[in-house]
This record gives sequence, structure tokens and C-alpha cells, in this order.
Amino acid sequence: MLRIRGSQHTTRPDTVAAEEPLEIRLGGTALAVTMRTPGDDFDLVHGFLATEGVIAGPHHVAGLRYCDSVDADGRNTYNVVDVDLAPGVRPPDTALDRNFVTSSACGVCGKASIDAIRTRTRHDVAADPMRVPLPVLLALPGRLRAAQQVFDRTGGLHAAGLFTADGDLVALREDVGRHNAVDKVVGDAVREGRLPLAGHLLVVSGRASFELTQKAAMAGIPVLAAVSAPSSLAVELAAELGITLVGFLRGDGCNVYTRQERIVLPSHPPDESRPARR
Amino acid sequence: MLRIRGSQHTTRPDTVAAEEPLEIRLGGTALAVTMRTPGDDFDLVHGFLATEGVIAGPHHVAGLRYCDSVDADGRNTYNVVDVDLAPGVRPPDTALDRNFVTSSACGVCGKASIDAIRTRTRHDVAADPMRVPLPVLLALPGRLRAAQQVFDRTGGLHAAGLFTADGDLVALREDVGRHNAVDKVVGDAVREGRLPLAGHLLVVSGRASFELTQKAAMAGIPVLAAVSAPSSLAVELAAELGITLVGFLRGDGCNVYTRQERIVLPSHPPDESRPARR
Repeated sequence: MLRIRGSQHTTRPDTVAAEEPLEIRLGGTALAVTMRTPGDDFDLVHGFLATEGVIAGPHHVAGLRYCDSVDADGRNTYNVVDVDLAPGVRPPDTALDRNFVTSSACGVCGKASIDAIRTRTRHDVAADPMRVPLPVLLALPGRLRAAQQVFDRTGGLHAAGLFTADGDLVALREDVGRHNAVDKVVGDAVREGRLPLAGHLLVVSGRASFELTQKAAMAGIPVLAAVSAPSSLAVELAAELGITLVGFLRGDGCNVYTRQERIVLPSHPPDESRPARR
Repeated sequence: MLRIRGSQHTTRPDTVAAEEPLEIRLGGTALAVTMRTPGDDFDLVHGFLATEGVIAGPHHVAGLRYCDSVDADGRNTYNVVDVDLAPGVRPPDTALDRNFVTSSACGVCGKASIDAIRTRTRHDVAADPMRVPLPVLLALPGRLRAAQQVFDRTGGLHAAGLFTADGDLVALREDVGRHNAVDKVVGDAVREGRLPLAGHLLVVSGRASFELTQKAAMAGIPVLAAVSAPSSLAVELAAELGITLVGFLRGDGCNVYTRQERIVLPSHPPDESRPARR
């Protein structure tokens, strides 16, 4: 990770929030896949089933266990949990509820899981030669905020902005859902026949998730910049697809997690004439 | 809305981010339901289909229109969009992808839509007599933050904390997904046979959405407090179910949107001896 704070540019390891898919099965049948931070998975499964109205107490679950989903090295991924409901407990209707998303994957395991839940892009974002000067990048959150219509009144909306490499705002959309704000920006471009969005940056007001990174790739956008933190799977996917992923883009700094050569650093740091303080 | 800032307590209208369901149909068949901020819906539909790999340009869509979904007063809700793909464009596989959630509702329209996408709670949260002194409420975000293990290192995790009316922390969970953090907290209680969680507060580090309000209700939690903004549908659902919904819980203040009698205000404001400044 390239850490930029003012004129200080350092490369160092970073801790990002872990994000992996969890597949929940009922009696061996896939019920839902959710992107989650590993840990407390049995709590997650119980809570999911309770808040969806399937169970009301521990006696409604006869048993649950991690399935034998293995990665390429034969290690259990601990990303699939199979639940046996107690006799008489009714599984949810086959008519799927909004939270019940099924996966056509045979299992959710490491590399295979990412393949299973992602859509293949038609665009070669890795080969996009675009370059963005650092000062242009650092100015984008301010431009996004200045252009926002509703955020300051409600404080409840996420924003997504599409910018050129010169920092010009192409489109801005706001929504209660981050993914929806991005879909609206991309959809605007789709309707105008401008896909793929080579040479563009996508700036989002919140965090960078696996899902947003995937949406950038599907739209052919080579640079995704988030005001907040990225998840581990967002970084992995960006590295694999050749997307430049920027996090914590605020003030005079940011973190560049992948493909940092697209961010053009000033050759002469602006305050080099001042004595360095340590 | 009851606005609390230090000793200033005022009741006034508030603007919250609008949130309504949008059902996307392909040739009349439900494909997905997403909670979104109304507006730019055709952009949203195009972007959703493009980032899911269904379409790549405007020529792949033969037409789209709002369906005749009407509310109880016969007005179009503009919450259902039907898409006709161009000849030769393949709809997604019937094996549902993770983003394709279907609804068993006949339409998504106003009151009916909320009914359709929500799960009925077994618990009468509206009747919960719990009371929380304001100073206890205001102290909760600090306690949540102090108990967080990972947040300060990654900046990328949402937290959910379950508290008693005395402000004691019962459980804390963190996750890249807000809904997962809440599911983990609830699931912990389910496994210990402690549902319904009458007399408890649920505090979340981010925003309060329709989904989180519903999860609180399903767990029998009468007070949901968020550090950031609530959505319009979260406020509506909380009002209907009798949940106390608190937003912008930070510093010495908060906004109480519904069932404010559960928050016990100090009878003598702490700075009443000081002359009022206007």
C-alpha cells in the first residue's frame, strides 16, 4: 500500500477489514450468500435465521456445522455453514425473500468463491493506460461534496461520482445504497452509449467493497477511489483485475492499494524547501 | 422529531433520505428488488443490468417503463420498472445470482410494498415499557467505540452493540456489513435463548435503514440508535411497529424520530442556571 499524506509518500503493509463470502445452507440446500467478516459465523447464521423469521430460539436448530468446502490446497475455507432445523420448524418459502439470495456455485471457497459470485467483465481495465496527477485525485472528494444536492440536508445519502482524468465531473448520483448510487452513474453512461468508461475515475463517498470494485470493472472504469476504507476482497479483486484502488481519500492524503503507477506523484514534493520535522 | 443538543430540546420537522423499494422486472417477470432513493430509476435499472453483465449498451434494451403498480389511493407508486430486452440479449440464468433477489409480492407499492418485503415479528415491541435516561443513551457510542477491537486498525468495519437500559454492554460484533454485525449480535442472543430482547437497546455505528429496523423488531428490541442518519422507510417502519428510533447519536445530542417517551429527559437541564443565548 502506498500511503500519501501531504508530501510524505511511504510504502508499507496495511490492515484492511476482512471480507469473505459465507454460504448458508439448510439441509444441504443453498439458502443465502452474504459477504461478511469471518468470525462468529454461527452467531451470524442464528441471527440471520431469527431476523428472517425462520427460528425463534436455540431449540429450533438441531445442528449446524461447517461444510467440507476446500480451497485449491485442500484446506477447509470455513465459508459454508449447513444448518439442520429441528423437526417441525418450517424452512422459508421457496418463493425467495429479498434477503435470500442463492448461489449457483458448488461451494464457496477461496479463489473459487470469488469466481462464483462475480460477473465477468468484457473490458480489459488492466490495460487502461490512464494516469491521474495526485493533486487532481486529492481534489475529487471536495468536488463531489460541492456537487451533492441532498447530502447536507439529510446526512443519509451515499454519493458516487464519475470523473475524467482531468478531474472534471461527468455524473453524480446519490442514494441510500452505495451500490445503487454507482448503478445510477453507470446506467447514465450506458444509456448514452459511453461504455466502457476507459480513462475515468469512480469516486464513492463511503467504503470500497468487493461489490463496488466489481461494478467498476463491469463498467470498464480503471480507477476506484473511496473516501473510507476498502475491504480485503475489494483489494484482492482490484489487484486481480488491474484496477487502481484508492482508499481513505480525504484531506491531503490517500492510500493506494493496487496499480499505483496510475497515480502520478509530484516529482518535487511541495514543501521540500521546508526543513523536515521528525 | 425531537432534536437534542446539550440542554436544547426542540421538536421540529426533519428531512430524511427517502428510501423505497424498486422492483425490476424483465418481460413482466420479477428479477430483483432493491431498496433505493427514488429518482434516476431508469439509470439505476440500466446500471444494474450492465454491472450484472446482462447488457452492454443502450441498444440491448428495447424498452422500459413504469408498471401500473398503484397504492391504496389508486396512484402509481413508480416503484416497479419493466424492461424489454432487445432480441438476442440473453436474460440472466434462472439460477439466481447474489444480486438477484426476487419478491413474492404482486407489486411493490406504498404500504403494500412494506408488507411484502417485511417479515412479521412475533414480539410486541410497541408495548415494551422500557425507559432510558438521556445521559445513558448519549454515553453508548463511546462505550461501543471503546469496546471495538478492530475498527481503529482498519477503519472498515461496522459495529453493532446490544445494551441494557442501564447502559451495560451485553454483546458487540463487527463486520464489513451492517446487517451482518446486527445478525451476529442477535444470533448470540438466540443461541443463549434470550429472545425476545425486551428492555434492550441496539446501537449501530452507521445509518439506520429499513432492514436494520426490521431486524430490531424481529429480535424484540424496542430501541434502535444509530450514529448516523436514518432513512425515511426506517422512520416509517419504526413508527408503525412502535420502535424508538434514534439517529445522529453523537457528542451531546441525538435526534429521536419515533416513540420519544422512552427517552427520559433530565427534568432540570444541566445549564439552566446560565443565561440563555439566542
